[in-house]
Amino acid sequence: MVTFMPVNRSAIVDEGTTLAEAARQADVFIKNLCGGEGVCGQCRVQITAGNAEADEQARAFFSEEELERGYVLACQTQVHDNLEVLIPPETRMEGAKIITAEGEEVEATAGATPIVRKMFLEMPAPTLEDNISDIERVTRELRKKIGWHSYEIGLPCLKRLSEKLRDNDFKVTASVAKYSGGYKILRIDPGDTSQTTYGLAVDVGTTTVVAQLVEMSSGRILGVSGTHNLQASYGEDVISRIIYACKKGGLEPVHQAVIKNINELIDTLIEDKNISREDIIAMVAAGNTTMSHLLLGLLPCSIRLEPYVPTADIYPQIYAREIGVKINPEGILETMPSVASYVGGDIVAGVLACGIPESQEVRGLIDIGTNGEIAIGNNEWLVCCSASAGPAFEGGGTRCGMRATKGAIEKIEISDGKLTYHTIGNAKPRGICGSGLIDCMYELVKNGIISPDGKFNRDLKDERFGIEDEIPYYTIASAEESESGEPIVITETDIDNLMKSKGAIFAAIKSLMDYIGLGFDQIERFYVAGGFGNFLNIEKSIAIGLLPDIPKERIEFIGNSSLTGARLCLLSEEMLEKSFNISRAMTNIELSNYQPFMDEFVAALFLPHTNRKLFPSVSY
Amino acid sequence: MVTFMPVNRSAIVDEGTTLAEAARQADVFIKNLCGGEGVCGQCRVQITAGNAEADEQARAFFSEEELERGYVLACQTQVHDNLEVLIPPETRMEGAKIITAEGEEVEATAGATPIVRKMFLEMPAPTLEDNISDIERVTRELRKKIGWHSYEIGLPCLKRLSEKLRDNDFKVTASVAKYSGGYKILRIDPGDTSQTTYGLAVDVGTTTVVAQLVEMSSGRILGVSGTHNLQASYGEDVISRIIYACKKGGLEPVHQAVIKNINELIDTLIEDKNISREDIIAMVAAGNTTMSHLLLGLLPCSIRLEPYVPTADIYPQIYAREIGVKINPEGILETMPSVASYVGGDIVAGVLACGIPESQEVRGLIDIGTNGEIAIGNNEWLVCCSASAGPAFEGGGTRCGMRATKGAIEKIEISDGKLTYHTIGNAKPRGICGSGLIDCMYELVKNGIISPDGKFNRDLKDERFGIEDEIPYYTIASAEESESGEPIVITETDIDNLMKSKGAIFAAIKSLMDYIGLGFDQIERFYVAGGFGNFLNIEKSIAIGLLPDIPKERIEFIGNSSLTGARLCLLSEEMLEKSFNISRAMTNIELSNYQPFMDEFVAALFLPHTNRKLFPSVSY
Repeated sequence: MVTFMPVNRSAIVDEGTTLAEAARQADVFIKNLCGGEGVCGQCRVQITAGNAEADEQARAFFSEEELERGYVLACQTQVHDNLEVLIPPETRMEGAKIITAEGEEVEATAGATPIVRKMFLEMPAPTLEDNISDIERVTRELRKKIGWHSYEIGLPCLKRLSEKLRDNDFKVTASVAKYSGGYKILRIDPGDTSQTTYGLAVDVGTTTVVAQLVEMSSGRILGVSGTHNLQASYGEDVISRIIYACKKGGLEPVHQAVIKNINELIDTLIEDKNISREDIIAMVAAGNTTMSHLLLGLLPCSIRLEPYVPTADIYPQIYAREIGVKINPEGILETMPSVASYVGGDIVAGVLACGIPESQEVRGLIDIGTNGEIAIGNNEWLVCCSASAGPAFEGGGTRCGMRATKGAIEKIEISDGKLTYHTIGNAKPRGICGSGLIDCMYELVKNGIISPDGKFNRDLKDERFGIEDEIPYYTIASAEESESGEPIVITETDIDNLMKSKGAIFAAIKSLMDYIGLGFDQIERFYVAGGFGNFLNIEKSIAIGLLPDIPKERIEFIGNSSLTGARLCLLSEEMLEKSFNISRAMTNIELSNYQPFMDEFVAALFLPHTNRKLFPSVSY
Repeated sequence: MVTFMPVNRSAIVDEGTTLAEAARQADVFIKNLCGGEGVCGQCRVQITAGNAEADEQARAFFSEEELERGYVLACQTQVHDNLEVLIPPETRMEGAKIITAEGEEVEATAGATPIVRKMFLEMPAPTLEDNISDIERVTRELRKKIGWHSYEIGLPCLKRLSEKLRDNDFKVTASVAKYSGGYKILRIDPGDTSQTTYGLAVDVGTTTVVAQLVEMSSGRILGVSGTHNLQASYGEDVISRIIYACKKGGLEPVHQAVIKNINELIDTLIEDKNISREDIIAMVAAGNTTMSHLLLGLLPCSIRLEPYVPTADIYPQIYAREIGVKINPEGILETMPSVASYVGGDIVAGVLACGIPESQEVRGLIDIGTNGEIAIGNNEWLVCCSASAGPAFEGGGTRCGMRATKGAIEKIEISDGKLTYHTIGNAKPRGICGSGLIDCMYELVKNGIISPDGKFNRDLKDERFGIEDEIPYYTIASAEESESGEPIVITETDIDNLMKSKGAIFAAIKSLMDYIGLGFDQIERFYVAGGFGNFLNIEKSIAIGLLPDIPKERIEFIGNSSLTGARLCLLSEEMLEKSFNISRAMTNIELSNYQPFMDEFVAALFLPHTNRKLFPSVSY
């Protein structure tokens, strides 16, 4: 087990896992610019208990004194012992942080009020002089503790209340939820159960559903579990699932599929952590607008059709049982609000996680999936847009593309005519995931194998190069190397698709910047989220024109910001309230109707861009 | 059918029923001082369609011109035709009225906003320029119509919303409920269903459960249905039901009994009126604190035990389905708030129905059942108390007492040594109900058969008088006359119980008046509610010292004020809000702990009272 301090989050990992990977599993984000190459030196951590040695390459980044004190690079250090690891302030990521008035970074949810609290109440027994009703006695106590005047009351919390109070000497635990600008008492239980209060943060992705089990009082992540979204059998992407759900009788099975996902994740987590289902009292789910609709059982049909109208952007707080999610029967479900049909609760969660609404400086978030969603703003304004990028960076739409799972080629380098690659889990290659495809484009153009318009140099003398059915291709892994026995290649058609994807995303960023009248250099922090793989090479992403050419230390890959944002809302009623404000305040620019975007898109169909002045740092 | 104007309420009654009875069935209250004797002339009404003749006795009350215009006394006129009856202003009761600023009486709910409204919305279809979410489009329309900013939304109202909007050209009906200081959208249905909106007002009495089906838009009462409270099999009175419900496994059957009652009443009403269950969208229930607890499935145990603490005084708005009441699945249930363990929602409803909180003059309400509850106040203050009166006036605790149903002796007169009586439904006598017992006490003491201390004159020479097992008794109906073949008698023990009941009630009234420092003459209107029978003889009630000796025209018998108050709340969100204010504002004087009450009680165990000065008008 590896425990990360000062956040006190742990992960149990296989021997040989890197500390960087262990940190991700424990949902601790640490800085990483070079993509785990051991070359940027940003992921400095200190081993404070257990044995681990800095590797030779990494030693260059530390003083003798630091080495003696146990400093290592997280990306280069493998786990072979139980470790306690201190993450120094300079290594912590800014996601999930807020800037206080004094400019000091703090955990966003430190000292915050979770959206459901269990409060232990010790009350005086009634007398003839003080014979207010039982629930009024409870409410009076809550008023003192919470400082709020009136409380909604669910019928179940009145059931057997008089017995609970009297059998327990007027000592009970009230579960109190933030509700509609006030508070609601969900349950009143005998004795003190306040120590066992858990919540779930769930990222309902189109591809993957991930749930975190969180201890509400401390914010500690007890466990994480993920699974493929079972809706995949009704369609790989959002559009095909909408089409299925809008057929007669189609909604219910698609809705039930994700409920089954979530219940299975809950089963796994409560078994692993040996906790009671009843003690999970709240859940926050984040997903794109379609996923949120399908989670709640709402028809998503009009999302797909101009003028792209969802049923709701702000979803009601419900009891989780209303959609069949099996936690405490009075446990609540909040669904992160969305902004528009194609800017969902996952983006709102991401914007929260990046601290954009509290930032005085301008920050940007780009979440790259089948759609690329971009949000830019600060504590005064927020704009966003969404561009259909195609599934190329998620592994779809290319001949050998795949999701970032075991066997995916996640890194590629061509140096001195020699191609090397790295797969997830060091397995035999099965395909290429998003980060591998970015590397691939970069290496091909840098080495002159393709020209900046994405066409292969047909005169190329390279055994990896070939033409099949008039389509040029380049072999990344040979038939002998691959798991399937088929070569893993990238074709000119693939390059074309990737060019369109990166072009759409860059055009969206550029259009949005132009819309707000800012230049790239005015973005102080730029966060990249998405399912490319474990690492995203920022430098190469800039070099192919996917990301804007700003100093690379301003760009951070933050992984699943949707899940982080959902957890923030679970742990902080203030954050949840902020999410509603983001949903209401964020201006969505509808690009499908926006001519400048079309022009930018065409201009971006080149490596790195037809206007090279936009990419001064790119040298190929 | 008899239709009463201008309130436009109808009742279908048996031929031969009096207009006064028909009015009660239609829930139209008309003045009645003499108890239906045809002697006070207060129940003047005008027949405007159909045939009915004023009887000879009644003719004395009208001018020739009035007789020509169809004036009759409601209590003396039988129904033999379909009639339309105009109730002139002077005949209308003040219950369920409010005094406007101009001093004009209006129906309290005229122009009011029902607690649930169905609102037909015609919206523009979305465009790219106006592509807010579907629910936001609905909400925007509601904001315009209702003038309120934000709306709670139940998940069911989002279900298939996009389809409902698009299949119906963006014309839908939203069901909007008053909820927690704001509004909640319960449902959105295709097309215009606003014309079919019904509600239920239910009086959950310990003995009887009565439901009124009301058209929400017009306030029209479509039907009334009543039944014995099935909880009777678990105990006749509140205390025995509490004891049963607090045994292991006891709560559920007692709770389910009243739910069964209500569902059967609903079945009857929707079948009779040929309406759809789905169109009943709201219900307001009023009952004493124990009945309210049992209705909602809350443990009533601590109500019975010092310091008399209920689970709740203000009950949450719930979906009726939460307790198994079968109306629209999103239909709501409001339970009238109570004040204390022995001052329930029925009294709060009655206080509302009597217009006490709007009155500048001081008004009183006394609701006589097993407990006598008294509320006194005006638009500035409200006090109440409750005294255990015993079941005597409800027909319990006396040898031949019975409820006010068919065969009950409801009137008794002894004149020139001759006893005459009248039974409900003119049936063979089966016992004596509350109003009959009041008459009985009065006639016995007036004719010297009992002395003012309630003891029989043992030297009496009267064939009706006898002594059995040393207990003197007086025969009201002989064995030959009675249905059972047993004589119907009143014993000295009965008189003793009745004396304690009337003593407790008067002592409660007197204690409360003394507490607030007012004399009886400062009460401008005094309303009497309860289940004595169809009529209560006010004069005789004063003469036995049950009611205070104030001018009898200030006293009105108003029947089931609990039901009236519940209906007012169903039809007026303002009235419902007022009921919460009454619950919070009313000061409850706990008599069980109050020495002046004990002194008053002892002083009141005499006919009319040990202090005769309190009853100057009483002449026997």
